[in-house]
Amino acid sequence: MKKLVLIRHGESIWNKKNIFTGWKDIKLSKKGILEAENAGKILKINKFKFDITYTSLLNRAIHTTWIILYKLNLVWIKIYKTWKLNERHYGKLQGLNKTKVLNKYGKNKFKKWRRSFLISPPKINKKDINYPGNDEKYKNIDKKKIPLSESLLDTYNRVIPYWKNKIYKNIIKGKSILIIAHGNSLRALIKYIENISDSNISKLEIPTGKPLIYEYKNKFKIINKYYL
Amino acid sequence: MKKLVLIRHGESIWNKKNIFTGWKDIKLSKKGILEAENAGKILKINKFKFDITYTSLLNRAIHTTWIILYKLNLVWIKIYKTWKLNERHYGKLQGLNKTKVLNKYGKNKFKKWRRSFLISPPKINKKDINYPGNDEKYKNIDKKKIPLSESLLDTYNRVIPYWKNKIYKNIIKGKSILIIAHGNSLRALIKYIENISDSNISKLEIPTGKPLIYEYKNKFKIINKYYL
Repeated sequence: MKKLVLIRHGESIWNKKNIFTGWKDIKLSKKGILEAENAGKILKINKFKFDITYTSLLNRAIHTTWIILYKLNLVWIKIYKTWKLNERHYGKLQGLNKTKVLNKYGKNKFKKWRRSFLISPPKINKKDINYPGNDEKYKNIDKKKIPLSESLLDTYNRVIPYWKNKIYKNIIKGKSILIIAHGNSLRALIKYIENISDSNISKLEIPTGKPLIYEYKNKFKIINKYYL
Repeated sequence: MKKLVLIRHGESIWNKKNIFTGWKDIKLSKKGILEAENAGKILKINKFKFDITYTSLLNRAIHTTWIILYKLNLVWIKIYKTWKLNERHYGKLQGLNKTKVLNKYGKNKFKKWRRSFLISPPKINKKDINYPGNDEKYKNIDKKKIPLSESLLDTYNRVIPYWKNKIYKNIIKGKSILIIAHGNSLRALIKYIENISDSNISKLEIPTGKPLIYEYKNKFKIINKYYL
């Protein structure tokens, strides 16, 4: 029986402040650091080992990865960092307080922007400080692929090819994989893995810093799923 | 003018306890963590940026790398971890107190084991707990290449091919490189870079956690060298 482990990064400073974050590169809060440490500890107590880790290009996910691998005495394993596992790009909402957005635009629009599968928030302008094309982290990415805003479907459309072409190939080679990413990149992945419908995926909430375990047999036939 | 930066990891728990460490995977001491943080701060103040980091497979070097990149807001850059940059393997001396070894074997032998270019300490047995062939970190390395003990020449003979084939190729592509490694893997590298003789290299001491800067022109013509 093999295990795939998914973890949403620990609480960030903007999670705490209730601000739309997306690709804004906000660090872990103190609570987030503790959550990451606890995730590492519980994985260690349960004797988890990994061959490869995948994470995003964002500080809060990479920092969570490092804290967990340090606790596991696995700092030396391969860590792949990719924008394909970044949080959903929240367009013009990035940096805005969620309560203020709710009050300004109303509950219906707010919910659609946050939780519908197909609708994306208003796009940012390429001159906007939040345009990733001006961030050196993303300098090697084809400008046409850099999002100005994303629906969950848009996020799904970058996460799942990465899963199929990179992560899954290592799973069928027998590698033990740990993925540390974000609320929406993990939501996209779980939608695919569990074949969840477009409407039901909106209800899926993923807690920060809690290892989600998929037990599977060869070629990824899922046997069991639980939070550690 | 481009810059190459070399840093010896912060003080480890065994540096502090005066024990031969080598490939034993000993963590940073509290002082070592502070040294790494200070190295990151001073690089940041001096506006250093890097494209690629190289480090060893040992915790104290990787942890130092992570602390420095966190301070620099560069957690997302490529980090290559390789056994080729590991500390010199100290054979049977690993785990022994340096003062006790000095008292038992005398000053002459002690100095040769530590500082001669050609002499290696007594070899470990393959059944020894210190044999790296039983450590999963090194499972992908050809068993014939795994050392039982190393002279500085042996270390040189793995560090310099890695420099030539990997690091230097990125330098001539114009990449800004940070190398975070160990007393002896850096000693080997500096010997090559500065063309230091076999006898003079023994006098070179590299402090922990101090960025060593080489300023160079294209194709690595060194113009200036200093500690930050």
